Amino acid sequence: MDVAYVNPFISATVKTFEMMMKCDVKPGAPTVKKDASFSFDISGVIGLSGDALGAIALSFPKDVALKAVSAMIGSECTEIDYEVTDGIGEITNIIAGNAKIGLSKFNLSISLPNIIIGKDHTIQSLSDIPALLVPFASTIGNFSMEVALKTP
Amino acid sequence: MDVAYVNPFISATVKTFEMMMKCDVKPGAPTVKKDASFSFDISGVIGLSGDALGAIALSFPKDVALKAVSAMIGSECTEIDYEVTDGIGEITNIIAGNAKIGLSKFNLSISLPNIIIGKDHTIQSLSDIPALLVPFASTIGNFSMEVALKTP
Repeated sequence: MDVAYVNPFISATVKTFEMMMKCDVKPGAPTVKKDASFSFDISGVIGLSGDALGAIALSFPKDVALKAVSAMIGSECTEIDYEVTDGIGEITNIIAGNAKIGLSKFNLSISLPNIIIGKDHTIQSLSDIPALLVPFASTIGNFSMEVALKTP
Repeated sequence: MDVAYVNPFISATVKTFEMMMKCDVKPGAPTVKKDASFSFDISGVIGLSGDALGAIALSFPKDVALKAVSAMIGSECTEIDYEVTDGIGEITNIIAGNAKIGLSKFNLSISLPNIIIGKDHTIQSLSDIPALLVPFASTIGNFSMEVALKTP
């Protein structure tokens, strides 16, 4: 995929964390994901389709997920319960929804999110459509985004 | 979601395993998933969008995933490598693609698949759109499908 296509996802992530979690987020350089080397505790995954096909995954260590959802809903979350999985799904949904505006030429629509829970899980794309991996550092901790987009 | 909408996913799964893996698959009764009680080693996840929004996840224990992909590609897989993750992604893709034909009134399109690897991971939907869980028994072992569909 063209690296430029990851930019709407990056700016959507920065804006979403700033607006909804009042949290300052700094993106690192996107890299082509070579292997399933990063592992996390909870991920939000959502599909994109239209004139391009895609998928986005936002992956968090448990403590960062708890802090992000706590900040979003304004009450402290201490365990990964439905409130937290719904929150992570909602964050993923909002980011994908914002990113598609910057990719309007592909007329993308977004699916329902799935939320993955599991210590040290990894996420992969099909090997012929390598995902771009974007690390994020934030005031509540580090997390990561993977974006795969198959353009016409 | 209307339980009837899960039927195209069930028949697509049975047909796909029969045609591609020469494997006899028996679906169990779909149930509304109450909690993240089932856990697996590898899952294929794909999003659906159009006049309805959805997501489907196919989840396998490691040994069943290896046997399924081995049967599909006609050579023995012994570890979860790219061949296996691509295979699980492809199986998920084919099942979603077949199921959408039975749901043509929703003009669904399907996203790229993501493949989740991680011992005992669980998959959830947003709590206001409960997923239907379908257990499958097959000659190569048991696996499971989760379908969430938000219809207009």
